[in-house]
Amino acid sequence: MRRNLVEEGDNPDITMERRKATFSVDKMAMFIHGGEYKLRRRREILKFVESQPEFQDPIPPEFMSRQQRLENNARKVVAMTDKTEVIDQSDFFEEGMYYQSLIMGRDLHPMSLHYVMFIPTLQGQTDDEQLNHWLPLAVSRSIIGTYAQTELGHGNGKLETTATYDPATDEFILHTPSISAAKWWPGGLGKSSNYAIVVAQLITQNEGRGPHPFIVQIRDHKTHKPIKGVTVGDIGPKLGINGNDNGFLVFDSYRIPRQNMLMRYSKVLPNGEYVAPSHAKLGYGAMVFVRSAMIRDQAMQIAAAVVIAIRYSAIRRQGEITSGMGEVQILDYRTQQYRVMPQLAKALVFLFAATQVKELFQKVTAQLTGGNTELLQELHVLSSGLKAVVSWEVAQGVEQCRLACGGHGYSQASAFPEIYAYAVGGCTYEGENIVMLLQVARFLMKAAENVRAGNARLAAIAGYLNEKGPMKCKLTSWRMASDADLIENFEYVARKQVFAAFDFLQELQRGGQSAEDAWNSCSVELCKASRMHVKCYLVKTYLEKISQCNDPELRPPLNLIGRLFIFDQMAAHMGAFRKAGFMEDSQAESISRAIYDILTLLRPNAVALADSLDFSDRELHSVLGRRDGNVYPALLKWAQQSQLNQTEVSRSITPCSRFAFI
Amino acid sequence: MRRNLVEEGDNPDITMERRKATFSVDKMAMFIHGGEYKLRRRREILKFVESQPEFQDPIPPEFMSRQQRLENNARKVVAMTDKTEVIDQSDFFEEGMYYQSLIMGRDLHPMSLHYVMFIPTLQGQTDDEQLNHWLPLAVSRSIIGTYAQTELGHGNGKLETTATYDPATDEFILHTPSISAAKWWPGGLGKSSNYAIVVAQLITQNEGRGPHPFIVQIRDHKTHKPIKGVTVGDIGPKLGINGNDNGFLVFDSYRIPRQNMLMRYSKVLPNGEYVAPSHAKLGYGAMVFVRSAMIRDQAMQIAAAVVIAIRYSAIRRQGEITSGMGEVQILDYRTQQYRVMPQLAKALVFLFAATQVKELFQKVTAQLTGGNTELLQELHVLSSGLKAVVSWEVAQGVEQCRLACGGHGYSQASAFPEIYAYAVGGCTYEGENIVMLLQVARFLMKAAENVRAGNARLAAIAGYLNEKGPMKCKLTSWRMASDADLIENFEYVARKQVFAAFDFLQELQRGGQSAEDAWNSCSVELCKASRMHVKCYLVKTYLEKISQCNDPELRPPLNLIGRLFIFDQMAAHMGAFRKAGFMEDSQAESISRAIYDILTLLRPNAVALADSLDFSDRELHSVLGRRDGNVYPALLKWAQQSQLNQTEVSRSITPCSRFAFI
Repeated sequence: MRRNLVEEGDNPDITMERRKATFSVDKMAMFIHGGEYKLRRRREILKFVESQPEFQDPIPPEFMSRQQRLENNARKVVAMTDKTEVIDQSDFFEEGMYYQSLIMGRDLHPMSLHYVMFIPTLQGQTDDEQLNHWLPLAVSRSIIGTYAQTELGHGNGKLETTATYDPATDEFILHTPSISAAKWWPGGLGKSSNYAIVVAQLITQNEGRGPHPFIVQIRDHKTHKPIKGVTVGDIGPKLGINGNDNGFLVFDSYRIPRQNMLMRYSKVLPNGEYVAPSHAKLGYGAMVFVRSAMIRDQAMQIAAAVVIAIRYSAIRRQGEITSGMGEVQILDYRTQQYRVMPQLAKALVFLFAATQVKELFQKVTAQLTGGNTELLQELHVLSSGLKAVVSWEVAQGVEQCRLACGGHGYSQASAFPEIYAYAVGGCTYEGENIVMLLQVARFLMKAAENVRAGNARLAAIAGYLNEKGPMKCKLTSWRMASDADLIENFEYVARKQVFAAFDFLQELQRGGQSAEDAWNSCSVELCKASRMHVKCYLVKTYLEKISQCNDPELRPPLNLIGRLFIFDQMAAHMGAFRKAGFMEDSQAESISRAIYDILTLLRPNAVALADSLDFSDRELHSVLGRRDGNVYPALLKWAQQSQLNQTEVSRSITPCSRFAFI
Repeated sequence: MRRNLVEEGDNPDITMERRKATFSVDKMAMFIHGGEYKLRRRREILKFVESQPEFQDPIPPEFMSRQQRLENNARKVVAMTDKTEVIDQSDFFEEGMYYQSLIMGRDLHPMSLHYVMFIPTLQGQTDDEQLNHWLPLAVSRSIIGTYAQTELGHGNGKLETTATYDPATDEFILHTPSISAAKWWPGGLGKSSNYAIVVAQLITQNEGRGPHPFIVQIRDHKTHKPIKGVTVGDIGPKLGINGNDNGFLVFDSYRIPRQNMLMRYSKVLPNGEYVAPSHAKLGYGAMVFVRSAMIRDQAMQIAAAVVIAIRYSAIRRQGEITSGMGEVQILDYRTQQYRVMPQLAKALVFLFAATQVKELFQKVTAQLTGGNTELLQELHVLSSGLKAVVSWEVAQGVEQCRLACGGHGYSQASAFPEIYAYAVGGCTYEGENIVMLLQVARFLMKAAENVRAGNARLAAIAGYLNEKGPMKCKLTSWRMASDADLIENFEYVARKQVFAAFDFLQELQRGGQSAEDAWNSCSVELCKASRMHVKCYLVKTYLEKISQCNDPELRPPLNLIGRLFIFDQMAAHMGAFRKAGFMEDSQAESISRAIYDILTLLRPNAVALADSLDFSDRELHSVLGRRDGNVYPALLKWAQQSQLNQTEVSRSITPCSRFAFI
């Protein structure tokens, strides 16, 4: 096994960094990615992707127009779905998403909802006859579908689009009653899909029956023109993900056959009679799946960002620390370490949490098959809370990495603009973060109520609310702090926040507010409680995961990384740790000093740790983050592809009075 | 004077908001913008800009290609500089920048460095003969220039480009000795400039004389082709500001006449003899000017963002607080208020600080004319510190506003992506923020040393370091807290941080580190000290400014906004306020409660406060932030201009197997 690959022609600074690593990068990569088999699979999949001409971009996508990007993405996604035999399709969370990211980058593609929403909804919501009709068409790509729920005026809740049943013709009339009812945002809706699952308010026998899903043809099979009664188009450029044609959709009394209502649970009979579902739908399913998958996807974004920042900080020399001693690698600046290294810690902490969520998801899926919903709520709460905390921390962390790379971080050559735009979207989609935190808070407030009522039966993830714990922080020297002590600190603060929010809620209600108004007045405190609850979970998960590692090479850096995450979070929430005299001045000070000590200790392994995340240059897609460290020539070469450089002279863009604009 | 303009056809929710305002928006706008005259000038300039056909965009720039944007910007900037009689050109900070932002938006233009760097450098660094030759050419736009200092490998310091004097031909040979020496980033360098001030290492008589400025022709006057020996081009797409052709520049033994060295301070004689400057250059000048101007520019970005977020939050209805009572405006959610309103407070605090900086700048300029440099260092420290703190808080605040607008905030229709990309650049350019904070720290450590040595003479902005102040926070009820008490709190914490950093530095040196290593080891603490010093200044400046307002309509909301900023910052730095028992648990709790109270009190005036910032729809350039609140129809109309919607059918971007990719 190689210790840390060093190649001739690599930047000498980065080679020096690799030579001084104290551990084998491959061994670390195996630990991070879940073992030898997983790491081998990553490399096999990479090799396959690199070998396929159809997966290559003619020019880097950042130099393409939107039209070119979409065409290129459509071409690649077709090739990708034609060649899925190389991956284990049952492993969507890792192999599937890795494969897709290698081929599609961070741009998504015109089929992003076809596979994660359209087909799963067909599978979950159709009756047998519908399934037999539609599924083969979707799988063979004879139809391309998306999922149209969100409207201009509403993401969920009071959707306005109507589907009114007309028994005279056995049809539903889809209609957009106002501009705010226009469907808005569905991925792939603008130009590429010819079908959509449309969620609309069902009206039959003059009665509203709430939102139901319908499968709707929106474009002609032959001409691909929008069908009469349908207005459809692209919603325009966004912060990022512009390789996807998110779209809008407006219906003008558009008729579809009654059979196009997805009838697995509810039905409308030919006479217009509504048959309600026999039991409540398991509504969590799709959301929980996507949110669970997001944790790993988000973790990989901060991981990519920190790999770029560390490698660049190792090859960039600027300024002297000691006058006359020569310029130093910017990674030698304490401020740079302080900016970048905690992001590495977050990357690992989030990755390990993602693995736990995946395992819980698999357990829940197996349970559900047997009708057991025991762990479903726990997964729902966990994935919602993690989604909110992780996506926010990732967005923040990516920007710190970008800013740490100075001017070059602002160039699209760095990949940071793309990573940020992609990652920060996760704060909003699949449940806006504040909404997610408030859902977690519902669960926590219920648990707090149980504890106060003396009812000790709590879900495992809330068990600590039942404990007492010490009233004083035990921290003396950070080197002596045990895992148990550190967990205790976080449990203490999380418990404090949960009960503080609970008490505030009670206080507001005693003061005359309704339960609902009190909830709103208290909601900032509720979010704080949820965040600390999730951070406590993250600390526990990481420490548990590394407790399984007994390799004497790997354990010390893994310990340091965990400590860095923990002390960095304690510093960020210092106000909370100071409450009720839990932590003394000297302890507070020792936490910032601990961070500085750890940064010094991690410094020699920084590049090796970055390498251990096992990104290929293809996946990173960053000139600054190149494995070989030869950044400057690559930047120049990259820039020469700029659209503006395709002609040497463009007099129409000089304001010089000798030319165009005299 | 109108109370708050309400027009027929406006969104009814936003009209309701305007009707319930407790103050006159015009009066508030006058206070914010510095009086009746200033407000009138804003409106006159706006009216002029709107009346000029040359200043209009054929389509919104976000739908243009880069080439189109640059052409459009070049066209507009020429028209703009041809029509400057409408503004008071001596008032660059306000009238000049306002005029430019109305015409150019947030995209900059191919002459952005021509006016702020090229011409000022000619004015400051040439001898009389050079000035007479070059200035008229530059002013008449017969030559378009930029300022080329930054290289691929260095922003400043060890620049590598050389200018070697050859007495045989009376020429300098400009050369790029390595790839990392390529000039990189100068605005307008890529395609539009035909001249550049190039900063290069002067070598004459075989001796290096350090970096000096040269004026260099890079493109042919007639053909606009790069001249032999010069390679020049665009550096490619960036996070933002893509309407500017930031460029690269490589010299291959390129000869320029000796007379092209800017010789006001240093000279090279025909025989190669180097004449050193008779006195040290006043190096602060240009930097201090740009950084001072940046404070207002940055403040206007967070102001724009918060206006958009508040207006949109007033017209967006989603979800119910009380079940069955109907959907509420999202601004009624406490979490939304908590996200958005502190950004409004920051906008005003930063704007008032910008006014103070402008006044100090004018004072310093007047002093310098008389050879007096007394206040120059104070301005340098203040502008550096404010630049760092303000640009970071603005970037964070803009993103909070964007995220608070959910999915629509992610669309370029919102303007947030553009505002963010523009504003966050300010964290990096004109002195990277961490570097700026460490420069402030140098000043603070010197001041701390003086205090410890019993030397009480400190610059005014550091005077509080000499005071003692109370050892306990006096806060009981936030409504009772006097301005003096609040300032005391911030001074206490800033002083604590400054001396903690000072003591840590000493401790490290006693532990055996050199002064330079200790500085590096301590640098994170130094940055904390600088940040708190600046925040203390911001609090004082705001409170001082509103103390001049005695209008009973305006004063209460201005007070609340100040309190919101203060308590929000105290909450953000709670760990620091808890040190040495300065603040008790009950006081800490009262701070978050104070924020909630203030949010409730500000809620009815939220839209009126936003209106008081006096943005026109033109300046905001945001569909979400429209004054009339009619967002949804405008979004649909905006999207229809998407490049992808120019054809109804684009079969090349559907992966449907019936079409292209079977």
